[in-house]
Amino acid sequence: MMNTLQVALGERSYPIYIGEDLLAESSLFSTHIRGKEVLIVTNETVAPLYLDVVKTALIDYRVEVAILPDGEQYKTLAVMQQIFDRLLEARLSRQVTIIALGGGVIGDMAGFAAACYQRGVPFIQVPTTLLSQVDSSVGGKTAVNHPLGKNMIGAFYQPQCVLADTATLNTLDDRQFSSGLAEVIKYGLINDSEFFNWLEQNMSLLIARDPAALAQAIARSCQDKATIVADDEREQGVRALLNLGHTFGHAIETGCGYGHCLHGEAIAIGMVMAADLSQRMGWLSEDKVTRIREIMLAANLPVAVPGNLTSADFMDLMSVDKKVQDGLIRLVLLRDIGQAVISDDYDAPALAETLAKFTAGY
Amino acid sequence: MMNTLQVALGERSYPIYIGEDLLAESSLFSTHIRGKEVLIVTNETVAPLYLDVVKTALIDYRVEVAILPDGEQYKTLAVMQQIFDRLLEARLSRQVTIIALGGGVIGDMAGFAAACYQRGVPFIQVPTTLLSQVDSSVGGKTAVNHPLGKNMIGAFYQPQCVLADTATLNTLDDRQFSSGLAEVIKYGLINDSEFFNWLEQNMSLLIARDPAALAQAIARSCQDKATIVADDEREQGVRALLNLGHTFGHAIETGCGYGHCLHGEAIAIGMVMAADLSQRMGWLSEDKVTRIREIMLAANLPVAVPGNLTSADFMDLMSVDKKVQDGLIRLVLLRDIGQAVISDDYDAPALAETLAKFTAGY
Repeated sequence: MMNTLQVALGERSYPIYIGEDLLAESSLFSTHIRGKEVLIVTNETVAPLYLDVVKTALIDYRVEVAILPDGEQYKTLAVMQQIFDRLLEARLSRQVTIIALGGGVIGDMAGFAAACYQRGVPFIQVPTTLLSQVDSSVGGKTAVNHPLGKNMIGAFYQPQCVLADTATLNTLDDRQFSSGLAEVIKYGLINDSEFFNWLEQNMSLLIARDPAALAQAIARSCQDKATIVADDEREQGVRALLNLGHTFGHAIETGCGYGHCLHGEAIAIGMVMAADLSQRMGWLSEDKVTRIREIMLAANLPVAVPGNLTSADFMDLMSVDKKVQDGLIRLVLLRDIGQAVISDDYDAPALAETLAKFTAGY
Repeated sequence: MMNTLQVALGERSYPIYIGEDLLAESSLFSTHIRGKEVLIVTNETVAPLYLDVVKTALIDYRVEVAILPDGEQYKTLAVMQQIFDRLLEARLSRQVTIIALGGGVIGDMAGFAAACYQRGVPFIQVPTTLLSQVDSSVGGKTAVNHPLGKNMIGAFYQPQCVLADTATLNTLDDRQFSSGLAEVIKYGLINDSEFFNWLEQNMSLLIARDPAALAQAIARSCQDKATIVADDEREQGVRALLNLGHTFGHAIETGCGYGHCLHGEAIAIGMVMAADLSQRMGWLSEDKVTRIREIMLAANLPVAVPGNLTSADFMDLMSVDKKVQDGLIRLVLLRDIGQAVISDDYDAPALAETLAKFTAGY
């Protein structure tokens, strides 16, 4: 059984296919490849698992491969240069299609490389982690990190299609899997309280990787995200809601060093911090803050800031975030579960209290 | 006196201002800057000449500066990283406007950095060479080079406006100035035979840097280019005509090593080669080939391939060019002066003869 969602972006619209064993479906690829050349970009962890099956599905094409090191710490311009080296060494033309086979890091780098190579070639996303299936599948954000800030260098660039094969989730380790759940929970918190309730009731099925529950969660997450992105492709307004937990989360990721804290883990903590601050603003009841904290714990996610980050570190790291406008940190907070808001009128003392609480080893 | 041309690209339309001493005009900048922050990207040669006057014009803004090394050999991802370093170190937000102050290399790199920083911030082009005033001013092409190919990594990204200050041409050395004339001549050859005739008659005035003649040549060149770009912003068709001389020229630049041959010099040779091949195809009379060769000489441009490049080197270097489609090299050739055509049905033996002639020390 395969679910197909359409991300509506005018002439840049594209389908997301969700189902089991899609990687072997030649026709899903060939419908979306215009030329005869393909470069598969993947990493050392994913290649042994899925590269052969994808190559077999692409038997009718000239297929070249770039295998990158695995990890967020390699999401840099310097590593992206390896993709360009491969493209040029193999003399792949402007008609090449780049296929991103891997998690969010591979999707972000291969997508950004596709945006830049010869000023833009088509690409196909094949996300193999839960996080990338529900996050980078939708939205067209591609980027690499800079030592001073995450995703600071990138492009808005839409794929030709996304293939989310749920069978690939069986090889994810528990920590990576939970990291993906953080992003799933986020959609419930932003604008879908019904989905949040469903997640509370079905978290044990999801943790057990029940295929039907997973497919449902992925499709609903992509749908929720697609609705927001379709309204605001280039992040001028409402799309910023998707950054719930991200301003705190990016500071945690940067402060701890890329690779030490998974993205989903960092934003899980960030969402709990946003809930705490929302409560201090009088917007969210203690009961709901507790539910948010408990669903993270049920998903085996952390709810405390790791390492020795101080309040001052946080303020410092948050001030380089992309959400800063004219020197003001903009945060995504919660008016309710299912009702996120973009706020720059939060209380500075309340923010200080939240930071103090979470950096004191809560 | 100031000329204003509008480049018509829908919501990405922008003006080009052409005139003397525009760098000091605060209002030209401020009309096109939305935030309070500016990063000026320039190089070691241009900074001592024009940085102060631009900074003075921007007295109402927070101004940061990135000074790069000067030369085509520095148009790389690694050098572009210095722009990102400066942006992040200075904590410039998504509201920053990047100002490219310099020639084509600075414009290409600063423009590409603007396209990528936080997935896109506004930028203003202040081209200070003749080549960049008539070429990179119009078209929105930004890029860096790869060791295996020129402009292979980049983006289509339009500026907020272009300020072409003709007074900056007085500090150009003769070789750089002639290199710009090659691009001016190109517009006449592509689709403006009247302009070509005018250039034949006024070349000595231009070489003497007569301000009125220069302003006229720059405005007409930008107009000719803008007409073509407006029809085909993302280079799907007719825009490829602008690559007249470029397939041969890029091979010369890459083959001789970036920095040894100026861009305009390389495409001057490339245009003479394209004319030679067009004659072999029976499309161009010997008389017109001679006129093309002579206008290059009158502009103090080279018409012979430098170094020890062989025919085989050419074929090899041209096969990685962006104009290659499904393995076929596409060349821009001449049906007449003022009538360029995109061709992949030229005679292979004729191409071999042209390459043999030009690599034998013609």
